[in-house]
Amino acid sequence: MSCGGTSRSLVLMTDLSHSQRLRALRTVLAEQDFDGFIIPHADAHQNEFLPPNAERLAWLTGFAGSAGSAAVLAEPAAIFVDGRYTLQVRDQVDGADYAYRHSVTAPMDDWLRENLLPKARLAFDPWLHTQTQRERLERAVKDVGAALVPVMDNPVDAVWENRPGEPLTPIVPHPEQFSGLRSAAKRADLAASLGANALDAVVLTQPDSIAWLLNVRGNDVDHTPLPLSFAIAHADGRFDWFVAPEKLSDALAQHLGSEISIHGPDALGGELGGLAQKRVWVCPNSAAAWIFDRLMAGEATIARGPDPVTLSKAIKNEIELAGTRAAHLRDGVALVGFLHWLSEAAPGGGVDELGAAAKLAAFRAPGEHFRDLSFGTISGSGPNGAIVHYRVTEESNRVLGASELYLVDSGAQYLDGTTDVTRTVAIGAPSAEMQDRFTRVLKGHIGLATLRFPEGTTGTQIDALARQSLWQAGLDYDHGTGHGVGSYLGVHEGPQRISKVGAGTALQPGMIVSNEPGYYKEGVFGIRIENLVAVSPATDIAGGERAMLGFETLTLAPIDRGLIVTSLLNPDERDWLDAYHARVREEVGGLLTGAAHDWLVAATAPLEND
Amino acid sequence: MSCGGTSRSLVLMTDLSHSQRLRALRTVLAEQDFDGFIIPHADAHQNEFLPPNAERLAWLTGFAGSAGSAAVLAEPAAIFVDGRYTLQVRDQVDGADYAYRHSVTAPMDDWLRENLLPKARLAFDPWLHTQTQRERLERAVKDVGAALVPVMDNPVDAVWENRPGEPLTPIVPHPEQFSGLRSAAKRADLAASLGANALDAVVLTQPDSIAWLLNVRGNDVDHTPLPLSFAIAHADGRFDWFVAPEKLSDALAQHLGSEISIHGPDALGGELGGLAQKRVWVCPNSAAAWIFDRLMAGEATIARGPDPVTLSKAIKNEIELAGTRAAHLRDGVALVGFLHWLSEAAPGGGVDELGAAAKLAAFRAPGEHFRDLSFGTISGSGPNGAIVHYRVTEESNRVLGASELYLVDSGAQYLDGTTDVTRTVAIGAPSAEMQDRFTRVLKGHIGLATLRFPEGTTGTQIDALARQSLWQAGLDYDHGTGHGVGSYLGVHEGPQRISKVGAGTALQPGMIVSNEPGYYKEGVFGIRIENLVAVSPATDIAGGERAMLGFETLTLAPIDRGLIVTSLLNPDERDWLDAYHARVREEVGGLLTGAAHDWLVAATAPLEND
Repeated sequence: MSCGGTSRSLVLMTDLSHSQRLRALRTVLAEQDFDGFIIPHADAHQNEFLPPNAERLAWLTGFAGSAGSAAVLAEPAAIFVDGRYTLQVRDQVDGADYAYRHSVTAPMDDWLRENLLPKARLAFDPWLHTQTQRERLERAVKDVGAALVPVMDNPVDAVWENRPGEPLTPIVPHPEQFSGLRSAAKRADLAASLGANALDAVVLTQPDSIAWLLNVRGNDVDHTPLPLSFAIAHADGRFDWFVAPEKLSDALAQHLGSEISIHGPDALGGELGGLAQKRVWVCPNSAAAWIFDRLMAGEATIARGPDPVTLSKAIKNEIELAGTRAAHLRDGVALVGFLHWLSEAAPGGGVDELGAAAKLAAFRAPGEHFRDLSFGTISGSGPNGAIVHYRVTEESNRVLGASELYLVDSGAQYLDGTTDVTRTVAIGAPSAEMQDRFTRVLKGHIGLATLRFPEGTTGTQIDALARQSLWQAGLDYDHGTGHGVGSYLGVHEGPQRISKVGAGTALQPGMIVSNEPGYYKEGVFGIRIENLVAVSPATDIAGGERAMLGFETLTLAPIDRGLIVTSLLNPDERDWLDAYHARVREEVGGLLTGAAHDWLVAATAPLEND
Repeated sequence: MSCGGTSRSLVLMTDLSHSQRLRALRTVLAEQDFDGFIIPHADAHQNEFLPPNAERLAWLTGFAGSAGSAAVLAEPAAIFVDGRYTLQVRDQVDGADYAYRHSVTAPMDDWLRENLLPKARLAFDPWLHTQTQRERLERAVKDVGAALVPVMDNPVDAVWENRPGEPLTPIVPHPEQFSGLRSAAKRADLAASLGANALDAVVLTQPDSIAWLLNVRGNDVDHTPLPLSFAIAHADGRFDWFVAPEKLSDALAQHLGSEISIHGPDALGGELGGLAQKRVWVCPNSAAAWIFDRLMAGEATIARGPDPVTLSKAIKNEIELAGTRAAHLRDGVALVGFLHWLSEAAPGGGVDELGAAAKLAAFRAPGEHFRDLSFGTISGSGPNGAIVHYRVTEESNRVLGASELYLVDSGAQYLDGTTDVTRTVAIGAPSAEMQDRFTRVLKGHIGLATLRFPEGTTGTQIDALARQSLWQAGLDYDHGTGHGVGSYLGVHEGPQRISKVGAGTALQPGMIVSNEPGYYKEGVFGIRIENLVAVSPATDIAGGERAMLGFETLTLAPIDRGLIVTSLLNPDERDWLDAYHARVREEVGGLLTGAAHDWLVAATAPLEND
């Protein structure tokens, strides 16, 4: 457990098989008089990337995907994964130990209703479930007359020998040169909004919210530069930060100033319990059930609402926007270098997926302010490109073959901005089908890139514009069209999204989202075209009556002209593509010389009429 | 009150002013020791069109709009209306008696928090609020330490002299020739779905659900052929119908058969109370709070869910679809007759809004199976066309002027189908601005008419496609793009809609919706182009991979070619318009002769290139 006073069990074992681990867990559960236990893929912060000590699901079952959960009863057990992982889970998890279930169409609460006996005592770790998730489990457990019991010591940890320790990386200031706004000003805004809502305090459990608020960064998880911590912000301006002292330095203390009260993580429970009679804002969809229990035990009045920092953080200020433009230009130089290299190296059959990903990383690494990749590169050729969340391994690695498509989705963390870009490239001559599909995806991408929409419009309302051309051909793709992106923070952040459902937040100027329609022909090829865009006012509309918004495209890299059927584009779409390419040529090309520059000039030439 | 045992007060008064009515109500409230009362525009069924005896809001305040509510405290009182009625309420309601409030941006619960005193006793009529509405009021009242008290006798009725009686129109069978499915089969499906959900019964409070289920029609409210009634359907197939015996006939009893148990309306409370220990489905968004109170008093287990008949009713069967096509052809003949007449009569200045509406009704009335208009015709010229819910009166009536637009939104109830169509016509020469706006609205209309979309798609997901062309010019319209339509039932029905928010039901084959984008320039002109469309499988997509749906356009009437800027249409849009006009010419034209036929041929000629 990443916080909250776990004590390591004294059970010592040599390295066990996954079946042995399951047996050992069941023994511990029986000793503690529990009939079952839930193991989600989660840490105490609901982080996207987990620290190694929170990888309990992988340790117990062998399943290495980024989302899932298991339920272990004395008999039976089941593992729940979504459509991305239905194949992978069969490779990695023994079907004799765990029944495979689809987490959406056959969710855990239904399985519990089928398998829990009346009066059973089902344990759960209240640090690893949000309050909303706990309440859903509770309904199922109550329906069958069983009980859901929080455990203070996670039973998996009792049997996990050599479990890694808590990550304790140094926390560093994130200078105003990049953040654009002093922490004191951000905290004053937050305190004012608490006051305006007649609330006394807000509990912050999302590390990126706290990192943004304090203008600090860390390295406790992969790819997202955040330190794990908790905080309580008070309406009177006080700010309690709960963070491991090993991660702090004198320089940081100076950066933070005297207004921040620093506590060890173990002090959180006591402080929550001390909020008696206070009105406390807390987010049921991100805060652990443990937080709610402590607040209720302390007789605080809970006001449920979304983490208020999430929206403030999503709306980038002018300094952050300038930073992301600079980072994207730098990223464009690396991408063009890579695409040029690929155009020469791949057609001969000398490039494989692992090699391409490494080469792209090598092009990025020398960039100013470069710190890390923003996620593990998706480098998929041919059929591997059709696997939406593909991660190349030594086993899956394949050479980029002739007449195949190669899809590369990658990004970087620069001090001044986070990038995320996907390009799909034909190796040799593409088929007419590939070109038709690519052009339809491109039409969707341009549909969003050129869209104007009134203030108040949400991502769900505009998602179809990216799909329309595919729909007309009886096609679609099974992922969202866009996700929010942070400023040297998470490559996935809320609250804004562009997707069929669940994107109910209005898009507002300063928000960064991806624009990434795709098409996937299973077992054959995959296509995705992804640029990041910033929401911006559309002030250039003659005769317009309403305040309108649009998107400023941030990503700068050529789109493979060899995959475009020009006759399928209308004149406005051609104009957009040519203008975008001219901009890439001018801005990125100005920083290149020699063969790479020559290649870029050719790759960004205007479309010819078919 | 429309049911539930109201006793008429003995207070007798001569006709009172609205101020006197308010004083009289306050006197009654004080006598009953109440500090306030809520008067919604609602009846016990949440009908769209209220019977006259439920028009308490209009009687008390003078406000004649279709939505709103008032809150009357000893001091002060307020009336709440939405954006459609902010001007009208000032004309009709005395600001000295009632504060004007916007029902969305300054809703009643906030006003109550501001104005209710602690320990106040606020009365409400539990027949006139849904359970959801009651719970929202309850939160506000509790927040200030006051009490929300249900009253059994509505205090308005105690002071409303000569209040109309309950409507008691005859109920008639709706033959299988039009309904397409026997009531017994519909009821068997409903009983099976109750069994599948482990429920014992469902309470039905929406008269159109019951009319559909029993294949009966009535005339208790304007424009929608439904009888007011309640029902309880049981999982074992029993069916209890609560309906005034005066509305029944021997022929109807024979039509219904012996499986229906008929009770007077007063028996409903007793039957609900008798469902002790049963699991009972009831819809909190349509059923009155009174229903919930009776079920809870009887110790039933309440399962909240949407009225299950609503979705079944929305998915029309083949007979109903054939019926609506026949009705729309008939309606098209009337519309073409009207538009032809208008083209000759209006340019001379001899037509006013009232006259045009009467003429259109006269063209419809002789049609086979015609029974009624489906709503009061919106007949607006020039600036009146920009009022979205305009209803022409003797005072507002104006002559259709030269170089103006005329907007006519109308529909009819035929035994075999319900119609709803809007056409916007230029009287004389339109301005370039009118043509530009009309063409953008048309592009949105065609965008939906030609759209294909995957199964599972909702109205919110596709609404923007109807707005996109307006958005690009900085324009929009402030109403939904489409509403569900019944089969010789409500011209507005759920659950499907096409709108920016709240249209979360998947569009399914057989559903009928309107396709009606618009544009309104306040004080100058209004544009709307409305056809009804039926959702249908799109089976003609070569190479398509997914089950796709599309829309079959039902409405048959020419769209004013003189308002179209052909160069703004792309080739696909031109093709759609020409094909639609060719279809209108062929299908409607085949039933016309003489001058009307000649006019139609010219009005539906292919577009010429600009």
